[in-house]
Amino acid sequence: MTTIYNFSAGPAVLPKEVLQQAAAEMLDWHGSGMSVMEMSHRGPEFISIYRAAERDLRDLLAVPDNYRILFMQGGGLSQNAVIPMNLVGRKRDPVVDFIHTGSWSGKSIKEAARYAKVNVAASAQESRYTRVPPQSEWKLTPDAAYLHLCTNETIDGVEIDFVPEVPAGVPIVADMSSHILSRQVDVAKYGVIFGGAQKNIGPAGVTVVIVRDDLIGHALPICPSAFDWKNVAENESMFNTPPTYGIYIAGLVFQWLKRQGGIAAMEQRNIEKARLLYAALDADDFYQNRVDPQYRSRMNVPFYLRDESKNEAFLAGAKARGLLQLKGHKSVGGMRASIYNAMPIEGVQALVDYLNEFAGR
Amino acid sequence: MTTIYNFSAGPAVLPKEVLQQAAAEMLDWHGSGMSVMEMSHRGPEFISIYRAAERDLRDLLAVPDNYRILFMQGGGLSQNAVIPMNLVGRKRDPVVDFIHTGSWSGKSIKEAARYAKVNVAASAQESRYTRVPPQSEWKLTPDAAYLHLCTNETIDGVEIDFVPEVPAGVPIVADMSSHILSRQVDVAKYGVIFGGAQKNIGPAGVTVVIVRDDLIGHALPICPSAFDWKNVAENESMFNTPPTYGIYIAGLVFQWLKRQGGIAAMEQRNIEKARLLYAALDADDFYQNRVDPQYRSRMNVPFYLRDESKNEAFLAGAKARGLLQLKGHKSVGGMRASIYNAMPIEGVQALVDYLNEFAGR
Repeated sequence: MTTIYNFSAGPAVLPKEVLQQAAAEMLDWHGSGMSVMEMSHRGPEFISIYRAAERDLRDLLAVPDNYRILFMQGGGLSQNAVIPMNLVGRKRDPVVDFIHTGSWSGKSIKEAARYAKVNVAASAQESRYTRVPPQSEWKLTPDAAYLHLCTNETIDGVEIDFVPEVPAGVPIVADMSSHILSRQVDVAKYGVIFGGAQKNIGPAGVTVVIVRDDLIGHALPICPSAFDWKNVAENESMFNTPPTYGIYIAGLVFQWLKRQGGIAAMEQRNIEKARLLYAALDADDFYQNRVDPQYRSRMNVPFYLRDESKNEAFLAGAKARGLLQLKGHKSVGGMRASIYNAMPIEGVQALVDYLNEFAGR
Repeated sequence: MTTIYNFSAGPAVLPKEVLQQAAAEMLDWHGSGMSVMEMSHRGPEFISIYRAAERDLRDLLAVPDNYRILFMQGGGLSQNAVIPMNLVGRKRDPVVDFIHTGSWSGKSIKEAARYAKVNVAASAQESRYTRVPPQSEWKLTPDAAYLHLCTNETIDGVEIDFVPEVPAGVPIVADMSSHILSRQVDVAKYGVIFGGAQKNIGPAGVTVVIVRDDLIGHALPICPSAFDWKNVAENESMFNTPPTYGIYIAGLVFQWLKRQGGIAAMEQRNIEKARLLYAALDADDFYQNRVDPQYRSRMNVPFYLRDESKNEAFLAGAKARGLLQLKGHKSVGGMRASIYNAMPIEGVQALVDYLNEFAGR
């Protein structure tokens, strides 16, 4: 049977070991006689699963003690509203700064405008979202409620690989949905880090929010109580019933990451995987990735065939070789290979071999 | 090995056949080479899973064509905010009517008060939430934005087994979280039916909302776009990434329900299970269920030992016999047996045998 490699941008490939363990434990978790899906979230079995997941994520990212880790619902998209609902109440006449680097930061801008004045401090629109505007051009608000960045644009394939300078006291809010856990991060430089789980963490339906203590407790009265970070933090993410099975799978992924050597080791592998793939795309002009090499994402690699009439043949040939879900996002067309943590280097090599073969190299 | 029967109020027992199928398909769904967790929500595989789940739920509840079925996130608790955000914009100076029958309707009242004027048209507080106030006492608002009912109070064990008369044009919004699919319902009598999945549908993290077409499209500007029913309905629940694996499991539960003979057949079994259990509790005064027999829930059966010093011994003996998660909710104490669709009559019989044995009958 052909080995399958799944390049989906999310929901995305999971480590095989994780799926094997989940299958083996499906009907009886650790002799409890119950599936994890059947456990009360307030029982000792699930509480132990929850706390292990929280602790392992804290270890992996070296999250400082003055940050809470929240497991929520609604995805990154819902946090685009939940974040201003929780943060703009700290200011009179709040302004939220954004750097517009692609599709996801664009969505965040639209959503935040429901709750505060929005300032697009810099935009990559003129470059068609192929670079990060240089910091010298950013027009930041001195007293902004926060600065929102999408540090990895899943659709555009642009990654912000630095922590910007910001006016004193302005928290940086980073949407890391599609590259969290793929590289080392200094959490203390951020006010909020958030992400939907369905790329590098686990199944869709879990949203991770890492938030500094002092930013909790300022929710607007219109914020639904289930999305008030204070309620979530004070109840160990169990103010309402959490997505228990998704948290369990995320916990298995965290354990797997630890067995792989943690984030530093994963980052080295991700650098190597990205190097391999971009080199194949850059070898001649048969394929094209349009992103400024300095800002190319290590996780999401959009590319185009010079001759787009060959798109269908390319995808059919890929599928025949077990290389799945390579079609680009409908808004930008072309192809996209997402090479998250759970994509082994063998999968990238198989894709590179196919890229060379299809290009007749 | 002892057979395990899990009486958790939610997350709760699932059909064993469903878990077996999920385990078998975990690494490779129908020859796709992918786990359901790894599939793009926009790919043909998951779309087919989604559409089958939607269609089967529509069949089971005989949902009319002018109702949309939405699969959302956030649980019943989040809908307590999402519902007013979607419905009160239809009125100038909106009033929302509530019948306060227990803990869950109480939470709904508090949450709705953030978005509209609330009128508690009737309350069972004086009876300590052991009955439904008679309809003759309900003080309904003629032009209410909607009337909210919790048709089964999971903690208090009170079930509303009738559809009330309401002023013309006032939609009934029913929180059916803990008894949806347990009995036949005339959907056309309601404006909105909603529920968290983690009792009678599937795993926590999926929220089902069944809403009449004309009630869609009125969201307040402060409603997060991911929770605007219009966005959800127009995008087949894929405005943002849905909780794909939970929807898949829910779909397997719907197929299982069809194999059991559908809701009419389940209702007959649920009547028999409830009859057995209440009869054992009523046999003498060793145990006590305080709910007016007319309004006793078929799904959630709270009860107390006359001598509460025996509580720990009762729970320990139950656990030794494989009868799990019988402890009552912390807010009311005592015991609670939840006997959802997936609880076989053999489980109820085992509990009844133990109740008799422990009472020395």
